Amino acid sequence: MKIAVDGMGGDSPENNIDGAINALADSQIEILLVGEPKELGRLLSEKNYDQERLSIIPSEGAILDTEQPAMAVKRKPNASINICSGLVRKGIAKGFISAGNSGATFASSAGVLGMFDGLTKPCVGGPIFGFSPETLILDLGLNVDPTPNQLIDFAALGVSQVKTLYGINNPNVGLLSNGSESNKGNKLVKESFKLFEKSSINFYGNVEGHDIATGKVNVIVCDGFTGNIILKAVEGMGYAINKFLEKNITENKYKDIINKVSENTNIMREFGGGPVLGVKGIAIVAHGASSSTAISNGIKTISWLSKKDYINQLKKELEEIRGSINND
Amino acid sequence: MKIAVDGMGGDSPENNIDGAINALADSQIEILLVGEPKELGRLLSEKNYDQERLSIIPSEGAILDTEQPAMAVKRKPNASINICSGLVRKGIAKGFISAGNSGATFASSAGVLGMFDGLTKPCVGGPIFGFSPETLILDLGLNVDPTPNQLIDFAALGVSQVKTLYGINNPNVGLLSNGSESNKGNKLVKESFKLFEKSSINFYGNVEGHDIATGKVNVIVCDGFTGNIILKAVEGMGYAINKFLEKNITENKYKDIINKVSENTNIMREFGGGPVLGVKGIAIVAHGASSSTAISNGIKTISWLSKKDYINQLKKELEEIRGSINND
Repeated sequence: MKIAVDGMGGDSPENNIDGAINALADSQIEILLVGEPKELGRLLSEKNYDQERLSIIPSEGAILDTEQPAMAVKRKPNASINICSGLVRKGIAKGFISAGNSGATFASSAGVLGMFDGLTKPCVGGPIFGFSPETLILDLGLNVDPTPNQLIDFAALGVSQVKTLYGINNPNVGLLSNGSESNKGNKLVKESFKLFEKSSINFYGNVEGHDIATGKVNVIVCDGFTGNIILKAVEGMGYAINKFLEKNITENKYKDIINKVSENTNIMREFGGGPVLGVKGIAIVAHGASSSTAISNGIKTISWLSKKDYINQLKKELEEIRGSINND
Repeated sequence: MKIAVDGMGGDSPENNIDGAINALADSQIEILLVGEPKELGRLLSEKNYDQERLSIIPSEGAILDTEQPAMAVKRKPNASINICSGLVRKGIAKGFISAGNSGATFASSAGVLGMFDGLTKPCVGGPIFGFSPETLILDLGLNVDPTPNQLIDFAALGVSQVKTLYGINNPNVGLLSNGSESNKGNKLVKESFKLFEKSSINFYGNVEGHDIATGKVNVIVCDGFTGNIILKAVEGMGYAINKFLEKNITENKYKDIINKVSENTNIMREFGGGPVLGVKGIAIVAHGASSSTAISNGIKTISWLSKKDYINQLKKELEEIRGSINND
């Protein structure tokens, strides 16, 4: 199975390369490493790897973190991220991973792979607190003012992901709100609550901020504005708590424990990021500071999702849940 | 100075009483303990305290956590929370604190003390992450769908609070958003950004979720839906991290360090809650699980705020900042 890796994305091309090489431990995987041939060639020349299963696919021009993503993606059709999306679109690669400008990954995967009907922007979801690893939350990003129908779609995307990734049947879904009672919420949540009740979703009801840590539900649905703020709040708090612990508990025997706090509050960095949801192909958006382990985990995730027929499962779930709210 | 304490509110009347008695250590403070005379008398009979400076003010009927606050406040005019608000309204007490049904505290203080013109619901603000104790965030509660003008008011309330509580001159203010760039945000934040830029507020720009922990700004403004979710997310995460640390680091010498993590992620419980903002009098809403220390800290806060002429300072700040956006 061929998997495309954006060699140029992220803080360190070397982590992309090391991650790609590590992923070759799975003998079924072949890597298409996309990027500037000269730079990638130079870095690869210092490594040991199975050259038959890792090839360089040339790209031209990089999209910088400072560029406006949608514009840059259009202006640079041969940038590494666009070549990656194209390889998946053409069926050459089963999926791609990029640690580059995440806005560009969204724009390129949406534009090149296409979105499922009814969705306007990609959605990102995943567990954000490692001590509660089987609670997925979405949207974490782009959909800052979604409609109630889009929240229903996010629930479907989440349910499908939890079924595929964690093997959980009939996962339950909560709407993130400012109280657990059914009358709590802002306008969006109150309107959505009625749709969720009507749907075939295994709807738990409203859940609260602390439920990112209680494991009460498998899927937490929220608008991308709130989700993004919580994701970053978890990272920021984790960082501050970690610094405090490192300063005050210096004994070596506790190092792993303290590292665990850091890892579990910065799950995106450690676990290879999440799939771009709503696009018609497998695209993994990784943290800019992804380690080589994160990249190889992301590649393994692509292989796993592809074997599970992930995109068709998503499509089926979307159709089923959408159907349930339209049957009057 | 007389301060009213809701003796019936919260999980433990005994904590209210112990907190009230502890606060008498400040010889200027007199306590009006509001509640069922029989129950409070029985509990007080077992305590040592200066009886001349603590008297019981009788109330009838309690508002339960399960009741709809606004309705219950109307139906039970002699409930302890309403007696507390009335004592402040009449100028008998300089302020009150309640650990009871927080919705009832908001409804009673808004109804009995009255709101500043232009504000429709009380606002709650405070530091929510103890490792960043001088960053105040508001609204944390009721205003789930505020207007841009109301966010301006929240900023004014926050600025005034930070000036009074922390003695910070010209505090800077950030708008909580899904990215630091000026074009990031949902509809509310994008519209508010323009007003904030135009105002006399020392406006930093957009801040992100992690900035609850970086101390970058003194005041973070958000809608009450988002704020409430973050407040509870911090509590939930802190609880889970604390359990993990307690389980894995059991040596007694590290107990204080681990407790610090707990305290700093549940700041409302430890530090007596926050003032109800926007009402024309000092009302402190405390966590239902407030310790006696939290209650006595809350009482001290009332004394301090009253000496600082807090309510008039708030009014002045509101008028000044509102004026700055209306001067075309």
